[in-house]
Amino acid sequence: MPDPSTLFESAGIGDRVALARLLSLVERGGDESRSVAGLAFKSPGEAYTVGITGAPGAGKSTLTDHLIATGRQRGLGTADHRAAGADGPVGGGQVAVLAIDPSSPFSGGAILGDRVRMQSHALDDGVFIRSMATRGHLGGLSVAVPDAVRLLSAVGVPIVFIETVGVGQQEVAVAAAADTTMVVVNPGWGDAVQANKAGLLEIGDLFVINKADRPDTRETRRDLELMLDLTELGPWRPPIVETVATTGDGIDQLWEAVRRHRRHLLDEGLLEEIRHRRLVRELHQIVGLHLEEQIGALMETEDGRRITGAVAAGDLDPYAGAERLLSSLLSIPDDGSVDL
Amino acid sequence: MPDPSTLFESAGIGDRVALARLLSLVERGGDESRSVAGLAFKSPGEAYTVGITGAPGAGKSTLTDHLIATGRQRGLGTADHRAAGADGPVGGGQVAVLAIDPSSPFSGGAILGDRVRMQSHALDDGVFIRSMATRGHLGGLSVAVPDAVRLLSAVGVPIVFIETVGVGQQEVAVAAAADTTMVVVNPGWGDAVQANKAGLLEIGDLFVINKADRPDTRETRRDLELMLDLTELGPWRPPIVETVATTGDGIDQLWEAVRRHRRHLLDEGLLEEIRHRRLVRELHQIVGLHLEEQIGALMETEDGRRITGAVAAGDLDPYAGAERLLSSLLSIPDDGSVDL
Repeated sequence: MPDPSTLFESAGIGDRVALARLLSLVERGGDESRSVAGLAFKSPGEAYTVGITGAPGAGKSTLTDHLIATGRQRGLGTADHRAAGADGPVGGGQVAVLAIDPSSPFSGGAILGDRVRMQSHALDDGVFIRSMATRGHLGGLSVAVPDAVRLLSAVGVPIVFIETVGVGQQEVAVAAAADTTMVVVNPGWGDAVQANKAGLLEIGDLFVINKADRPDTRETRRDLELMLDLTELGPWRPPIVETVATTGDGIDQLWEAVRRHRRHLLDEGLLEEIRHRRLVRELHQIVGLHLEEQIGALMETEDGRRITGAVAAGDLDPYAGAERLLSSLLSIPDDGSVDL
Repeated sequence: MPDPSTLFESAGIGDRVALARLLSLVERGGDESRSVAGLAFKSPGEAYTVGITGAPGAGKSTLTDHLIATGRQRGLGTADHRAAGADGPVGGGQVAVLAIDPSSPFSGGAILGDRVRMQSHALDDGVFIRSMATRGHLGGLSVAVPDAVRLLSAVGVPIVFIETVGVGQQEVAVAAAADTTMVVVNPGWGDAVQANKAGLLEIGDLFVINKADRPDTRETRRDLELMLDLTELGPWRPPIVETVATTGDGIDQLWEAVRRHRRHLLDEGLLEEIRHRRLVRELHQIVGLHLEEQIGALMETEDGRRITGAVAAGDLDPYAGAERLLSSLLSIPDDGSVDL
């Protein structure tokens, strides 16, 4: 297989197979992933990310399917923004979808996406669909997904959808790290309350009541409005959009809401701010992952094995054992000096 | 408040308030928790732990309620084991219950237990019931519970029940770390399959079909037997016991199964082995928790803030930032030499 920088060059001029291979490297973690991340970081690109989350069965895949088409046709900006040069690349460019499924034993691989629902775009060269599972290690998804987004951005994709399969903690965190996060609920007693319980209310930049041709849509909207009333909101009050994903009803309004939220972030200078915060969070996570690896290595040293043996035998309590192990691993200088 | 060693002394001669305070310290974590753990480690005691896990609503609390009474009356050993001196303290001694509820905002505090169901034992001096939630940090439960068990053991409690409220990953891990772990299911289509999916089949030393007066008990037993047939088992095949916790039916057989499993562990020399392994796991977890704290401290150093700022500004990629931060934190000597 060609090395990462050759692949990166090819992906930059539209080679989808090269892009798929790079994403596999990113997903796998390790040294090659690291060098892909470095390449991507140097050519940041301008991708805007849209997170789509909600309970299984809420209709997220069908919604995403429509959003792909709408995103392709209408893009993110408007003519005058383009003129003002404030938005970077806009309009009917490429679209990528990262479908996040931490529980899936299958990861990546399929160049055109492995989900039946998205097959309508399978022959569209402007659409790149990818399933992502966790890499082997804890916290893997929260490191792999930002890397994947950065890669897609670097090769020129202007819009990246991040769709979660469920509402697990990891998935919600990943969706919440998008520029615009939409939370999908269905009409019906308690669905909004469930979303609240799952921590979705705090992360939604906009709410979608999908299957809005069903009864109880009005009640669900009222529930959501009430809960938003009770939440401390900033200057942006998340709009609630009704859709019927199976027919495409409401998709235009939904896309318009995404554009309005993006406009809001740009106008208030918030987009840069949230992206900075996200980078710092990534830094924390990467440091954490490194330290975990170090624990493993430490346990395998001669003294690591000796201390472990003493703890196992009950001769040394686990806290004392931990202290001895760590005293060799850690040495923060008093003045905190680090070469930069 | 008296210092830990004074409390420990009082708890050792039956002071329940002192014991409750010590458990609060353990739950809270930090330096005082550490010194309680040290005291407990020095007087190990002989507590045998019984984990009780299964889906919410399976009847675990009612079962535990009966097991408390039975454990009090009958103890763990038999007369000839006692004569042989092989079992340590046995017979109708004290019993403690740790009810693990990581999601609960309430933790500890109540000396006699805060759950209505267990109020029947509220005036029994030989029964100590305690709810435990997570301490503030990740992995807290898996460190706090072994510490709590060790403390109870050190003050002379011979039997500790560890009952989980749900089947969350943390709770299952904690229940699985007992000497004997029982998994409670109910009759009904798919309950055994659900238990399997939740990873309960691998951790069960014995299975309880509670509410066995309901239809489908036979089918559930068959499902369990089949799944056990398909599982790679050691010399111990987990028995399946039927109970009706509301009436107390089957509790004697269940207790007998616990005693048989304990006997098996002692006869095969396995009890010591699993306890050693558990101590090593604790060591890993404590090291991990320490390292997490170190990350926080590192980020607050002058250079930590400078590197974080460079990453946030996009001048330094998160991986490079992590490397620079870690180079100051970590220094494993090549020969792995650590003072022991």
